[in-house]
Amino acid sequence: VLVVHNETSTGVTSNIAEIREAMDRAGHDALLIVDAISSLASIPFRFDDWRVDVCLSGSQKGLMLPPGLGILCVGPRAIAASESAKAARHYFDWRPVLKENALGFYPYTPATLMLAGLRDALRLLIEDEGLEAVFGRHRRLAQGVRAGVAAWGLTTVSRDADCHSQTLTAVELPDSISGQDVVDRARALYGLSLGVGLGEPQINSFRIGHLGALNELEVLATLGGVEMTLHGLGLQVELGSGLAACERTFLDARATDGALDALDSVRARVGASKAAS
Amino acid sequence: VLVVHNETSTGVTSNIAEIREAMDRAGHDALLIVDAISSLASIPFRFDDWRVDVCLSGSQKGLMLPPGLGILCVGPRAIAASESAKAARHYFDWRPVLKENALGFYPYTPATLMLAGLRDALRLLIEDEGLEAVFGRHRRLAQGVRAGVAAWGLTTVSRDADCHSQTLTAVELPDSISGQDVVDRARALYGLSLGVGLGEPQINSFRIGHLGALNELEVLATLGGVEMTLHGLGLQVELGSGLAACERTFLDARATDGALDALDSVRARVGASKAAS
Amino acid sequence: VLVVHNETSTGVTSNIAEIREAMDRAGHDALLIVDAISSLASIPFRFDDWRVDVCLSGSQKGLMLPPGLGILCVGPRAIAASESAKAARHYFDWRPVLKENALGFYPYTPATLMLAGLRDALRLLIEDEGLEAVFGRHRRLAQGVRAGVAAWGLTTVSRDADCHSQTLTAVELPDSISGQDVVDRARALYGLSLGVGLGEPQINSFRIGHLGALNELEVLATLGGVEMTLHGLGLQVELGSGLAACERTFLDARATDGALDALDSVRARVGASKAAS
Amino acid sequence: VLVVHNETSTGVTSNIAEIREAMDRAGHDALLIVDAISSLASIPFRFDDWRVDVCLSGSQKGLMLPPGLGILCVGPRAIAASESAKAARHYFDWRPVLKENALGFYPYTPATLMLAGLRDALRLLIEDEGLEAVFGRHRRLAQGVRAGVAAWGLTTVSRDADCHSQTLTAVELPDSISGQDVVDRARALYGLSLGVGLGEPQINSFRIGHLGALNELEVLATLGGVEMTLHGLGLQVELGSGLAACERTFLDARATDGALDALDSVRARVGASKAAS
Repeated sequence: VLVVHNETSTGVTSNIAEIREAMDRAGHDALLIVDAISSLASIPFRFDDWRVDVCLSGSQKGLMLPPGLGILCVGPRAIAASESAKAARHYFDWRPVLKENALGFYPYTPATLMLAGLRDALRLLIEDEGLEAVFGRHRRLAQGVRAGVAAWGLTTVSRDADCHSQTLTAVELPDSISGQDVVDRARALYGLSLGVGLGEPQINSFRIGHLGALNELEVLATLGGVEMTLHGLGLQVELGSGLAACERTFLDARATDGALDALDSVRARVGASKAAS
Repeated sequence: VLVVHNETSTGVTSNIAEIREAMDRAGHDALLIVDAISSLASIPFRFDDWRVDVCLSGSQKGLMLPPGLGILCVGPRAIAASESAKAARHYFDWRPVLKENALGFYPYTPATLMLAGLRDALRLLIEDEGLEAVFGRHRRLAQGVRAGVAAWGLTTVSRDADCHSQTLTAVELPDSISGQDVVDRARALYGLSLGVGLGEPQINSFRIGHLGALNELEVLATLGGVEMTLHGLGLQVELGSGLAACERTFLDARATDGALDALDSVRARVGASKAAS
Repeated sequence: VLVVHNETSTGVTSNIAEIREAMDRAGHDALLIVDAISSLASIPFRFDDWRVDVCLSGSQKGLMLPPGLGILCVGPRAIAASESAKAARHYFDWRPVLKENALGFYPYTPATLMLAGLRDALRLLIEDEGLEAVFGRHRRLAQGVRAGVAAWGLTTVSRDADCHSQTLTAVELPDSISGQDVVDRARALYGLSLGVGLGEPQINSFRIGHLGALNELEVLATLGGVEMTLHGLGLQVELGSGLAACERTFLDARATDGALDALDSVRARVGASKAAS
Repeated sequence: VLVVHNETSTGVTSNIAEIREAMDRAGHDALLIVDAISSLASIPFRFDDWRVDVCLSGSQKGLMLPPGLGILCVGPRAIAASESAKAARHYFDWRPVLKENALGFYPYTPATLMLAGLRDALRLLIEDEGLEAVFGRHRRLAQGVRAGVAAWGLTTVSRDADCHSQTLTAVELPDSISGQDVVDRARALYGLSLGVGLGEPQINSFRIGHLGALNELEVLATLGGVEMTLHGLGLQVELGSGLAACERTFLDARATDGALDALDSVRARVGASKAAS
């Protein structure tokens, strides 16, 4: 069973835990292979709890690195299957990699620069910010994006709120303008990189990525670029409407998550400094 | 006569050409010394035309480098004055610098990393973007910032439109909140770096910098952070109002400056690609 | 016919032109596939002249980049063969790559950082130093390494002077010490990265790489580290002997290649400066 | 009393502790000001123990950073003196710096990039390598350089072994060639940066720097470049002689300082790996 955890052409996230349960209920011993390329390190992914057999990911999404590293996590059942498999393979043969990795080596020349970057990225995610905070930030930013889209009177390709991706939002467009128009104009006028709808049958849509090293103000910048682009293409979106809705979401989220403690701490320090001087 | 070209505590730009004319009319032979730290490479500065004798600048503003390099341009009258001056000096003595620079050297160890960066910055400004385009971009971004400020019902410290700085805007605040509150909250909640009002008598204000490597979307991000900060501090600013006003300014500016040519060029290329494939 | 252009386990370079001629004489229409990983951009490689059908290379050798980019050059006969081939393939399918590359795109996410680096590396190799000078430098440095090895009384694994690699030298060892000893000690004591002999039947040897961004003094550093390592392991090598032989080679090479012109130019400038000051 | 701790024009190190003692014996209350630019972080410097009042240093020597940061350490007596001093000053006024530093700020725009680098450099020096090891490495490398110079039959400008600088060696030259010739040729032919003799009366000499991020093999590379340069200028230096003497020094030093433990550790790990595989 091959599942895409977070589908980047539609902005839909699959519930891997439920798929695992369904497989268990069916009593089938199929391997569970998950593409976690645009989900890993941005939304919860539980390789062990969900008994995933193979997880595929990459460096250029939630891990905040340049593209260039494919990452493969394999569990014992997958390794056993690979050992008894009959398919001819060389590049895709896990055995020399597993053997050398165990000794701290690679059988071939590894992408050393990316590995050094990966070490730093993991430190940033796990030690500096903390994975729960990283996941919370992605949820908050995604809510802001969706609030903006709704304020423009547009709908997301993802219809079910439980399945909305927290890392990418695909937005449906009316027939009057095409996703390609939006992408081209945003890039040409504002240096903003959006994506066109992918796959077949292709929905007339464009896609907004919002994952990795990203904060509230960068989301506002992105929505501002989209808003001006849609307006410039003749769509009846009220200027500022998407941004205001996004801001409202951010203000509500901040009011409840204790982030103001940091502010108090700054004030205390400045107060002490002033008293001292 | 020592003039600050662009005053960063108030966001007011002085007209150096008129000051030169006034000096000429007065028939006084004073040297004209201009602090161009926050103006150089962001708004027009004409050392030769304005017969400036000494220009002081730095690396960390319009030249888009980290802080660390003071830049001094001196004309023949200033050099002559320094040669006959009686003041004791060593660090501030221009003579060994002028002598060694002429041979391609420095008399002391120069900040080589900054010099290498300066070469790249000058290439970006002069060859890649072009100084006129750089100046136009700074004007456009500054208009967007001021439009946002006006939409919030606030006024700039600079009252005279002819003197508005294109690189920094100081915004007056009502008595209910202080500039320090704005700066602290923006930094703590949004990672946004603003400045407090400077100087004496201190106006209750905060300052928004908008110079160097900056584009429309980054200005929207900045205004969004300010808007949420002011709203969070209880000021009656309508969410989205400042952003909408800024967007409108950008859309008007773009409509008239031919930037859509780039878009047409992208379309032509994509069209050709599709036809070929 | 699959040929390794420069064999890194033995330091032997194959003559691709002669292999091409042999294939022509035989009248066989086999494809000629060349592994140029450790030869490209260090020694002459002529894809068109030698009618190579497929060339495989990488970023981390003569192209002076970190590892992380495999480079494939394919000619029309290879493309034709791939189109009619029956083997199942997806990752190794050239067709989507060729199609998208023609439009300036990639079908999948490319390693953008490496591509940016590749552009700079090609500029350094082709415009700044010039390929002929790059090849000459590799020949000169390799001669220095081999002179040092000979002075120690050791022999290279490569026996035929016409086949000596200009990018890597494998050195045979007496039974008293192992290649692994040399590699371990050089790394532990001098931070020097050498290689052990590779392949089967494994010759007791170690390997010295000398390609890419490398100059005379770095070769002397490398030979110094090897010399101290061999001496420390009890081998009867006279200290300084390998370095002296290498220096002699470099002095002879410099005396005949006009490099002193640069020196004259420096002198002329300094002389002019002194006269002026 | 102004003392240069490590004199870079002659390669002579002064004994600050003895100067302090002499000042104490004289019962004079002069301030002790030490220029530690080319000594700090390379040889022991004890601000508190030696009761130094002002220490001047820079970023570009033992601290292994690019040039661009002047570093000033001032003790309580110097601060008291500065407060009662009558000299007019602004740029050189310590008071605003001391006041703001105490609050974690700078009164002016600091060179942020250098400060970030300084934090990393201090971590490398203090935590990773350890200051005692850093000092030991500088002594060892300096001994190697001096051994090479002696093997060429040349003498150092510094005559007294107790005063030899561990970070820079100035080498006297016979009349037949000038220091400028050596510097020019080394740069033009080998990309090696040496220095000419400085100061008055100028001794015919050239200077070899050996401090900061430097290891044994880089010293051999440097001596190799000097050796080829001197030989090329017609000086009767035997090729390899300086390098052999330097290698001998390094081999002796290593034999006694326990560095082979690292090698044993590598061997143990490799052995365990082999046993496991």
